[in-house]
Order: sequence, then structure tokens, then C-alpha cells
Amino acid sequence: MATITVLGAGMMGSALCVPLADRGHQVRLVGTHLDDDIIRSLRATGIHPKLSLELPRAIVPFPFDEIERAMPGTELVGVGVSSAGVRWAGEQLARFVKPEVPIMMITKGLELDADGLRPLPDVLGSCLSTKLGTPVHPAAVAGPCIASELALRVPTCVVLTGRDSAAVERVAAELRTPYYHVWTSTDVVGVEVCAALKNAYAMGIAFALGLHEKRGGSPGSVAMHNHESAVFAQSVVEMQRVIARAGGNPATAAALAGVGDLDVTCNGGRTGRFGRLLGLGLSPGAAIDRMQGATLECLDILRVMRAAVTSFEQRGVLRSEELPLLRHLWEVALDGAPVAVPFERFFAD
Amino acid sequence: MATITVLGAGMMGSALCVPLADRGHQVRLVGTHLDDDIIRSLRATGIHPKLSLELPRAIVPFPFDEIERAMPGTELVGVGVSSAGVRWAGEQLARFVKPEVPIMMITKGLELDADGLRPLPDVLGSCLSTKLGTPVHPAAVAGPCIASELALRVPTCVVLTGRDSAAVERVAAELRTPYYHVWTSTDVVGVEVCAALKNAYAMGIAFALGLHEKRGGSPGSVAMHNHESAVFAQSVVEMQRVIARAGGNPATAAALAGVGDLDVTCNGGRTGRFGRLLGLGLSPGAAIDRMQGATLECLDILRVMRAAVTSFEQRGVLRSEELPLLRHLWEVALDGAPVAVPFERFFAD
Repeated sequence: MATITVLGAGMMGSALCVPLADRGHQVRLVGTHLDDDIIRSLRATGIHPKLSLELPRAIVPFPFDEIERAMPGTELVGVGVSSAGVRWAGEQLARFVKPEVPIMMITKGLELDADGLRPLPDVLGSCLSTKLGTPVHPAAVAGPCIASELALRVPTCVVLTGRDSAAVERVAAELRTPYYHVWTSTDVVGVEVCAALKNAYAMGIAFALGLHEKRGGSPGSVAMHNHESAVFAQSVVEMQRVIARAGGNPATAAALAGVGDLDVTCNGGRTGRFGRLLGLGLSPGAAIDRMQGATLECLDILRVMRAAVTSFEQRGVLRSEELPLLRHLWEVALDGAPVAVPFERFFAD
Repeated sequence: MATITVLGAGMMGSALCVPLADRGHQVRLVGTHLDDDIIRSLRATGIHPKLSLELPRAIVPFPFDEIERAMPGTELVGVGVSSAGVRWAGEQLARFVKPEVPIMMITKGLELDADGLRPLPDVLGSCLSTKLGTPVHPAAVAGPCIASELALRVPTCVVLTGRDSAAVERVAAELRTPYYHVWTSTDVVGVEVCAALKNAYAMGIAFALGLHEKRGGSPGSVAMHNHESAVFAQSVVEMQRVIARAGGNPATAAALAGVGDLDVTCNGGRTGRFGRLLGLGLSPGAAIDRMQGATLECLDILRVMRAAVTSFEQRGVLRSEELPLLRHLWEVALDGAPVAVPFERFFAD
């Protein structure tokens, strides 16, 4: 058994500690500056206020200003900060970790740089490589996993991806428990594109909930599920196209990291609630207000993709008609266009 | 505009008449012997008792014993009988249709014969070819379409598939309305494998609802969605494998006919309700009783697939570990095994 330190005590970072603790590891959970209240609560009562449950005692919480006490002897590092905090996390970790300590990320996302779309594990990897003077290839977890369910030990299947397949296999072996099933993949681009885009597309799938409600419909098996599932299918088609353009394996979209994560995101809460509000006809601003400060990853990824698609089109590597749904999603959620899904432009080859 | 006759006045056959009527066609809806009550109600009040709504007046209903009056001048035939009635439908149609009249099926399913899995459009096609003495290639509709939603004109996207691509394009052109979007495909095997298997897999996806409820859980965004979505993803993986073995294009599973139809089937009612009951721990017999006579296509397709997989394995064209989920589904629903999804055997290559 290993000593594992997870940086970031939000819902997913903390939930991941549950299988780690059940596996018999010594788990240290270090909050960021934003997590001080969570760490205080964990120290006082063991209860994680956002997960609303008591974490196993084997998980030892540390506030960020005690990170020096948490890092010695760490054999595996988990990174559970927000997407915006990835470079900061790299700087912090560079102070403590040796190059041979494997890094595993649950932070997901894509950035756009001069070379195109860049998955966050590569961003963190190059950040650490520069500081440590040697190549670092973090592994990253993706797939259908609602944090609160994992913390309740609901059977969960995920994919661990990374550019160093031996390191990925070693990390995967440390994660597996009878309820936390871990597969491995070296398609970092495919997995991370899915992990990022699923938020945007799940928002669009949920438009149908709002459209139905706006018509006076009540929830049930006769609603606007035909609309919903057509958008779901087109989402998978477009994810494959983005993966192909970004240099990954489109088949990744047709398995756990793609359709699996997309499906769970439709069931998992805030992204769907936001899409429903847009379907009801609220402006993006009014919908954001109603979400009362919930993190909306869908808006971040739509901003990145609007810039990326524009740049791809200018360079002639993507035709604008290839991603009609994604375009509609940013027009609705970023530009305030009304919801009117362009079905007639879907499914073209 | 054309004169179109649909044989079979169940929910899907009747719902399809709505876009046909809206498109301006003359639509004749002929019930089978099993549909006499429906036709009586349609003649008396215009209300379809199973769809619970009034159909447009442009749809003219006929009981089966008046089929002779309905067929003259028919320029396109729709077949909406049950899977078990396909050969019977072939015999009836052979009495009336000329070889040049295109046939479109909404009946879905697979049969197992000496050559392997055979999609129902091919079964109907060879039945008609024999009787008419010339090759007949019906087109078939698949994709995410809840009949009651189509009848309410909810935006719906479907795929029309057939071995004669020119005929498929001609039929598709007659079907399209602003809310009924029709794409075309020549991958009859891929589309029909998806159309059949989605019922079995949707049953398995719904196990999680019952498992969660059995634990005392209430519906919501924290339930057993991780379990549900892992099964969803493996369903798509296995559909691709079955399509490959049956000679179709696995990519079909990653679009409208596959993930789209699977998603809608999870939302659409009876298959999910049945899966939930099995997840709750009811025996197949008790679960069937609770379904009060609802058609359970999932049981039919599981029987066909149990025989097919056994035969494929004996002939060495399929390894038994390739379809661990499908195997579990028939063990539960046909053989009464307890629900215990074998996640550890999923996602292997």
C-alpha cells in the first residue's frame, strides 16, 4: 500500500479518496486556499460539506498552508484542482515531488494554443517537466463518474489515460477496488476531448427538457425525448470529428469516456439544469443567475471551442458545416441566440 | 403527393401517418386483425386509443377485412406490423403490390438462420421477391423515435436504410417534414442490429434504477447513474462487436441508429420499467406479470441473441468474453440469475 496525496478537496478530489482509502492506501487530502471551509469541517466532524457525507477516517485532511507536512513520503499524487488552477498546481507540486512520483489528474479540460487544442494533462506535464528538468507525463482519469456516487461506493467505471503507458498501468493498479473499475488508454487527446466536450453537449441535450416544459408538458415517458436523443447522437458524431481534428482516436467517443460520460452528465445535475433553463427561453445571463454560482464548465469549453473552431476553419482544417450542433450551442449559451436546434444540418458526412 | 398505405395500426404505424399526412400525402391506415378496436375508434371519433390522441382527418382508417379497398392506387407501402407478423405481412402485400411500389418498414428485428443474423427487411424482401418473381428491397426506418412523441410532432430524427440506395432516397424524400428529419444509410445490417439490440441493452441500463431503489434510494441526480452510464457505454461497445460479426459497419452504433435510439429507449417507458423491476430483484416471471401484457421486445431479442452467440462461439467467430454484458442480460432476464453486472469483464479489447 502507498502513501497518496490528493491536492484539491472539492467534490471529485475528495470522492476519489474513498476508493483509495478502501484500497488500504494512506490518503492525505490537501485543500487549496478555496477549500479551507471544507478542510475545517473534515477536521472537526469528518463531514465533507459539499458531498454531505462523512469520509473514511483513513483520509487525513490538510489545509493548504500545511502542504509541507502532507507531502513527505508521497508515492502518488492526485490533482483535483479546478481547470483554471492547473498551472498553479504544477508550481506547488514542483516544490515537493520527485520526477519518479507518478501524477494522476482528475482535473479535466482543453486549452487552445498555437498548435491547436491541448489537453490539461499535457499542460500540467509540460509545466512540471520544465521545473523538474525531465519529462513528466501525468495520467488522467475520465469517464462516467458523479463524485457523490463514487463517495457512496456506487459501482463506477473510469478510464485512466496518459502518454506513458507503463506509468498508467502502475497507477491504475493502485486505484482499483471492487466498486471502482479502471481501464487504461493511451489516447490522451480522445479521452480529454470527450471529457471536456461532454459538458457542452449535455447542456444541449437538456434543451429538450426546457422546450417541453415551456409548451406546458410534464415530465414522463412522452415528452421531447426524440429531440433529446437526436441531439445526443449528433453530440457523439461531432465529438468524433473534433477528436479526429485534434489528433486522437475517434473510436474513444463510442465508449466509456465518450458516450458513458455524456450519458452520466445528462443525469448528473448542474449542466442539465442550465441547459433546461436555456430551453425554457431564459437568456444566458438569467440562466446563470438562476444557477446561483454553480460551476458551469460548459461555458468555459464553449469559449475554447468557439475560438478553436474559428481558427481551424481559417486554417482550412475544418469545414464550418461539420459541427452544426456545437456552433448552435455557443450561439445560444454565449451569444444569447434562441434555442432552435438545426436538425436539418445534422448527420451529414 | 402520393397515395400511401400503412399496414398495421399500432402506435408506431399510426404515428408515422402523422408526418405523412402533414406532408400532404393521401394516407390509408389498414389495421391487422389485432387492430380492430383501434380502427373502430378511429372511424368513430378519430382518436387512437393507444396513442390517446386524435389523428389528422387526412388519415383514412380501414379494418383488415377491407384491405382490398385500401390498396388500389397505392404508390408507397408502409409496414408497421409486429416482428412476428412480417411473413404474414409479406403474404398479404404480395396479393396487391406491384414490384415497382416501394416498401418501407417500421417493423424492426433480427432473426437467426443458418447464415447468421438476418435483419427483418431482408426477411420481408425475400418473402416478397419469391412471390413477385423479382428482387424486392424494402427500406426500413430506425433511430430515436417514441411513437407518441412523433404523433405530437416533436422534432424527430431517423435513419432510413435499405439495400437499394436509389429507392431509399426516393422514399426518404416522401417522408420529410419540418419536424420529421430523415437521413439515409445503406448499412442495413448495422442499423437493424442496433434497432434490435437497443431493447436488450436499455433493459440492462435500467437495472441501476431498481438497484438504487432496493437500497432505499430516491430518484435524483445522486443515485446509481455511474452504474447506469457504465452499462450504457459497454452497450455501445458490444453493439459494435455484434455489427462487425454480422457484416455491418460498426460506426453505425456511434450515431442516430445506435446511441440515439439506445438513449431514447432508456427514456421511453416499458423496457426501462422492466429492467428496473429486475434490478429490484423480481424474478423474470414476476416482472413480466407486473408489466401487465406490455410487449417486451427485449425478451425476444435476448432469445435470438442467446442462440446466435452460442452458434457464433461454436463456429469460432466470436469469443465468449466479447459480449459479457449481453450474456449477463439473458442470464438475468431469461434464466432468472440475480443482477450483478460483471463490470470487471467490460471494455476489454
